[in-house]
Amino acid sequence: MSRTNAFGDLSSMLAPTSVAIIGASDTPTRIGGRSIGYMLQRPFEGRIYPVNPQRSTVQGLAAYPSINALPEAPDVAIVALPASLVPDTLDDLAAKGTRSAVVFSSGFAEVGPDGAALQELIAARAKVAGMQLLGPNTLGLINTRRNFWGTFSSSIEAGWPEIGTIGIASQSGAYGAHMLSLAVARGLGLSAFVTTGNEAGITATDAIGWMAEDDNTNVIIAYLEGIKDGERLIKALETARAARKPVIVMKAGRSALGGEAAQSHTASLAGNDAVVDAILRDCGALRIHNTQAALDFAEAAVKRIYPVGNTLGVLTVSGGAGILIADDAEQLGVPMPALPEQTQSELKGLLSFAATRNPVDCTAQAFNQIELIGDFGTKLVETGGYKSLLIFLSHAGGHRSTVPALRGQLQRIREASPDCLAALSVIAPPEIVTMYQEDGFLVYDDPARAVSAIAAMGRLGEAFSSRPQPASPNLLPGRAFSATPNEAECKAIFADAGITVPTEVIVTTADDAVDAAEQIGFPVVMKIVSPDILHKTEIGGVLTLVSDAEQARSGFATLMERARFARPEARIDGVLVAQRIDKGVECLMGVQRDPVFGPMAVFGLGGIFVEVLQDVVLRRCPFDEATAMGMIRSIRGLPLLTGARGQQSVDLDALAQMLSRLSWLAIDLGPDLRSIDINPVIATAAGAWAADGVIEVTTSALQDGRKAE
Amino acid sequence: MSRTNAFGDLSSMLAPTSVAIIGASDTPTRIGGRSIGYMLQRPFEGRIYPVNPQRSTVQGLAAYPSINALPEAPDVAIVALPASLVPDTLDDLAAKGTRSAVVFSSGFAEVGPDGAALQELIAARAKVAGMQLLGPNTLGLINTRRNFWGTFSSSIEAGWPEIGTIGIASQSGAYGAHMLSLAVARGLGLSAFVTTGNEAGITATDAIGWMAEDDNTNVIIAYLEGIKDGERLIKALETARAARKPVIVMKAGRSALGGEAAQSHTASLAGNDAVVDAILRDCGALRIHNTQAALDFAEAAVKRIYPVGNTLGVLTVSGGAGILIADDAEQLGVPMPALPEQTQSELKGLLSFAATRNPVDCTAQAFNQIELIGDFGTKLVETGGYKSLLIFLSHAGGHRSTVPALRGQLQRIREASPDCLAALSVIAPPEIVTMYQEDGFLVYDDPARAVSAIAAMGRLGEAFSSRPQPASPNLLPGRAFSATPNEAECKAIFADAGITVPTEVIVTTADDAVDAAEQIGFPVVMKIVSPDILHKTEIGGVLTLVSDAEQARSGFATLMERARFARPEARIDGVLVAQRIDKGVECLMGVQRDPVFGPMAVFGLGGIFVEVLQDVVLRRCPFDEATAMGMIRSIRGLPLLTGARGQQSVDLDALAQMLSRLSWLAIDLGPDLRSIDINPVIATAAGAWAADGVIEVTTSALQDGRKAE
Repeated sequence: MSRTNAFGDLSSMLAPTSVAIIGASDTPTRIGGRSIGYMLQRPFEGRIYPVNPQRSTVQGLAAYPSINALPEAPDVAIVALPASLVPDTLDDLAAKGTRSAVVFSSGFAEVGPDGAALQELIAARAKVAGMQLLGPNTLGLINTRRNFWGTFSSSIEAGWPEIGTIGIASQSGAYGAHMLSLAVARGLGLSAFVTTGNEAGITATDAIGWMAEDDNTNVIIAYLEGIKDGERLIKALETARAARKPVIVMKAGRSALGGEAAQSHTASLAGNDAVVDAILRDCGALRIHNTQAALDFAEAAVKRIYPVGNTLGVLTVSGGAGILIADDAEQLGVPMPALPEQTQSELKGLLSFAATRNPVDCTAQAFNQIELIGDFGTKLVETGGYKSLLIFLSHAGGHRSTVPALRGQLQRIREASPDCLAALSVIAPPEIVTMYQEDGFLVYDDPARAVSAIAAMGRLGEAFSSRPQPASPNLLPGRAFSATPNEAECKAIFADAGITVPTEVIVTTADDAVDAAEQIGFPVVMKIVSPDILHKTEIGGVLTLVSDAEQARSGFATLMERARFARPEARIDGVLVAQRIDKGVECLMGVQRDPVFGPMAVFGLGGIFVEVLQDVVLRRCPFDEATAMGMIRSIRGLPLLTGARGQQSVDLDALAQMLSRLSWLAIDLGPDLRSIDINPVIATAAGAWAADGVIEVTTSALQDGRKAE
Repeated sequence: MSRTNAFGDLSSMLAPTSVAIIGASDTPTRIGGRSIGYMLQRPFEGRIYPVNPQRSTVQGLAAYPSINALPEAPDVAIVALPASLVPDTLDDLAAKGTRSAVVFSSGFAEVGPDGAALQELIAARAKVAGMQLLGPNTLGLINTRRNFWGTFSSSIEAGWPEIGTIGIASQSGAYGAHMLSLAVARGLGLSAFVTTGNEAGITATDAIGWMAEDDNTNVIIAYLEGIKDGERLIKALETARAARKPVIVMKAGRSALGGEAAQSHTASLAGNDAVVDAILRDCGALRIHNTQAALDFAEAAVKRIYPVGNTLGVLTVSGGAGILIADDAEQLGVPMPALPEQTQSELKGLLSFAATRNPVDCTAQAFNQIELIGDFGTKLVETGGYKSLLIFLSHAGGHRSTVPALRGQLQRIREASPDCLAALSVIAPPEIVTMYQEDGFLVYDDPARAVSAIAAMGRLGEAFSSRPQPASPNLLPGRAFSATPNEAECKAIFADAGITVPTEVIVTTADDAVDAAEQIGFPVVMKIVSPDILHKTEIGGVLTLVSDAEQARSGFATLMERARFARPEARIDGVLVAQRIDKGVECLMGVQRDPVFGPMAVFGLGGIFVEVLQDVVLRRCPFDEATAMGMIRSIRGLPLLTGARGQQSVDLDALAQMLSRLSWLAIDLGPDLRSIDINPVIATAAGAWAADGVIEVTTSALQDGRKAE
């Protein structure tokens, strides 16, 4: 494992040459004893130093009375002492020259405010000493290649993890051990296992990032609860993506959508979980919701075959299974194109009642004529051009009587398609499953699991091949906020950012309103303008169809009167007379600052699509126009933009351009930006206009004027 | 097993006292030999008669040269001969007095037209002889209690099914055997296994219905492909529901939505699979999409605990697992109410840093103080009132060292809550899993599977307790169709059925149009009326806002001119002048005759909700108003009806009444009804109106006049 890793110096923790256990126990089932017991059973390659002032030996090893008495500074120290002793212990370790501490001890932030204070103390001491800290309240970590068992998890009692290329990073010790146990039970090979506990030092993000750079890890399973370090998580995920390493994420807390009710309209669109979902998707991570799927996908990913433009060829011995597989594949978006006609007639020649389109069914006849499996399978892979292959054999793939002959047929198919992602659906004893796995097949008992895994590998293939390109910023000229900008000021900012706004003029008299309307051309829209009235429609402050001079004159009076009546204290800047964009589709775009991930852009169709159907898409700012187009095309209501119900398609390019520019504006407006709300955006066949907008900034920004980032 | 079963006489097939195998083989791995071999290894309780003219013994049993030579008429005969010999064999069996035949032979409808003809022949001969026929091309059937192994499935090589209460009914032999193999692998107990193959006689529906009435079967797993006998399937499912027996259905072909493009608008809303989905849901069946879920649910259902008003209490040794479980429960709609404050403080008293709300986390401390598990668990079940319970122990529930003490604690919890549906999430060796199962727990490795099963049992509880009451029909007066009825005729039929329509008059002159509009009151709607113009808007045949007498006069001329221009050959009955229902929400209701299940009603919101979002709900006609209300409340766009965006809620009762009446009208109009389309229905706070409607009937009905059912 590399020591040049950018994500925390986990190297010294995960690949130490020497380890001290502070609070070492002679009893191998105690917290201070398990790690030593494991490292004696599966001998650790380095030196083990138990520290215990009461004993001269611990589990047969020479014990040391104190840290100071150790013959060398250990690469890593495991601390298994009561919480109150941990601060001084860290000092002693630092004085000795130890650079890494794994604190098993509990009794910190998880028990209340006193514990939280103690945790802050040890975090501070570790920082001052330049010491890497894992925990406190961590279940520890494992490096299978070096037999470094720095954990007190009893899960290992049920079986030793095998060496492999899957890394597990978990905030929760117990859930991490749960995933570890299930991985061990199915014989998956692991590189590293890291649980981060209270995360006073190293976080699960660090562990993901470190594994992304670790040569022995090719697949990462992560369990996350809270995410505090958004930038670092994105960097870790992007590092993994660049290395073509899948990150399979279980994120707990998707039901806790609550949180603060924010003032801006778009705020209600995105609970934190939706933000996390968007971030993970954008970074190419696979989010899943149960451990079986996590392990199914990890097991498949170990092969490192990530199809781009995934297609699935299916061979079965049962028509019914083929239909179910086709159902699943369609639902998961994996195409199953038909075999060429020529191949189909050749297959019919081999077996007149076979189904030959795809799924191909060589029927139970294959068990009377076993070479049919190989004949059908090789023709399927040689002429179908499929990126993935699934062969359904069910229990017939597991009978000791038929397996030897069957295996030969399956090997023929593998030889004809070495680059294909190939899976079997068989019910078989473990040793037969292992045999098929050695031949290069993924093996699942049920075909539904196989299709899910194949679909997931295809999604990874797309994620790895389509890393978004950063766009160039707009480099806006500076602009000072005198206060929360009014609509006209917002639109001026939009216009500077390249966001199209309707032609419009602010007027302060009825005469000017008539003049402005006549210059713009009837019909026009008229709105009250006030920094104190964010949601104008609520007070009747918008007239959407002003058709002539007389209406413009009376409209001015009406708006002023309504504003004075509804909000007597409001500062009125005047009335906006604006070009009316006709026959468009109303959309909304916005930006909301997420406390963890920064400005998140949101796009949706107006009205019921957002308010009733929550049909919105989120993405972290900034992003380019192609990405914006992808967002727009992902909403369920897309047909309304592309010409449903006999309408003309709107100018999607203009919408995508506006959305991308908005995402850059959010960056340009700096860290004090709270939210931007463009509602409605009116999209027509001729373009897209920001017909209304609100920009909110934090109070400090109002005092300091506009800040550049 | 009862012989009074209403669904085909499967009793003689599944519980025979004697069985003949026609085409018996001495080789126990051949199709004609397997069944005999199995019945010798697990001795069949009755008499076995091999028939083979070439041999005096078969697998050690005395063989008979012909059917005629048998010493008695066997209760069931298994036919394992080439297809061409089957017809005469059935005749011989009938002559001997045998009433049931299981035809293993293939080479019938599955191989082409000649085979289909042969299949029709044997079906006809069996019918004439009054013989029950299973197959042809069936894998056969099993009755575990009587050791009747009437199958040639090799899946039994991998393990014998245990005796239990789960029945499997499958159209596909191979997929049925796949499910059987997985059930055997996890030790589930079976009552009966029936595969129906080409279904020339007994269908999977018959098998479901028979199992619904079978005393030894409590849970039914069904695999279905095509469904031909809609009425019978519904009767079978309702029989199972009345007996509180879940039917867990895998239905293949959900991706094949294509089918004929029907003329009526609502036809495109529902592919066949959506109809199947609606039927299964309405009949209380659980539709699932993979075998693991089928078996997880069946295993849970064996307990026959079906919570009504399901709630879930959760005890964990890991905070993370508790969050994941809460996420899953929320997604599946299982509430997790908090424990009473009093209990929570008692639990805090036991362990200060425990989480006590629900999920309750007694942390890994429980393994130092094992009685915490029992203390926490009993308080949880005694004071929380939960219908279901999930305890997450992960690998710690599987260590041989801790299991004895742990088991005692878990038994305390079971004793405190014998009626609770209780599940464990543990990773343990099979013998420990069995031990927990014997103590009354469902056991799953991963908590996500446990939550899914618990949610499914709750859905069954609701289905079993809420069987819909049939409403009384409207008993419409007879009405003859002179032709496909025009809009005015349709509305008269609607009005007779109690469906509210706007006040309206058909006129044939411009003067009459003005008079009618003045009587109704402006504004009015005007439409062309012609039996040859079903979709009036396509030719501009609707004027939606006619405001005064002048517009009414010119509108009449406009409509007549447009109709003559667009459809010169159309018969024009006149112009409809109608009350304009203002400010309503547009909905649509319709009925479409499904070839299998008969008239299916559909409801949705108008416009994009149907056309873009496919937000519709289907149900078989007829149904009562409460059911109609449930349908209306199930659509995603419901907030538009209940007052989203500051609007008044519409009169949902009026909508539900109309929808129920429409469903009865569909029945009253008899078997020649093809479709009814009410589009739009305009719903307001004051009521609901059928503003336009089309009724289509088959040609024969046009010739014969209206038929009563």
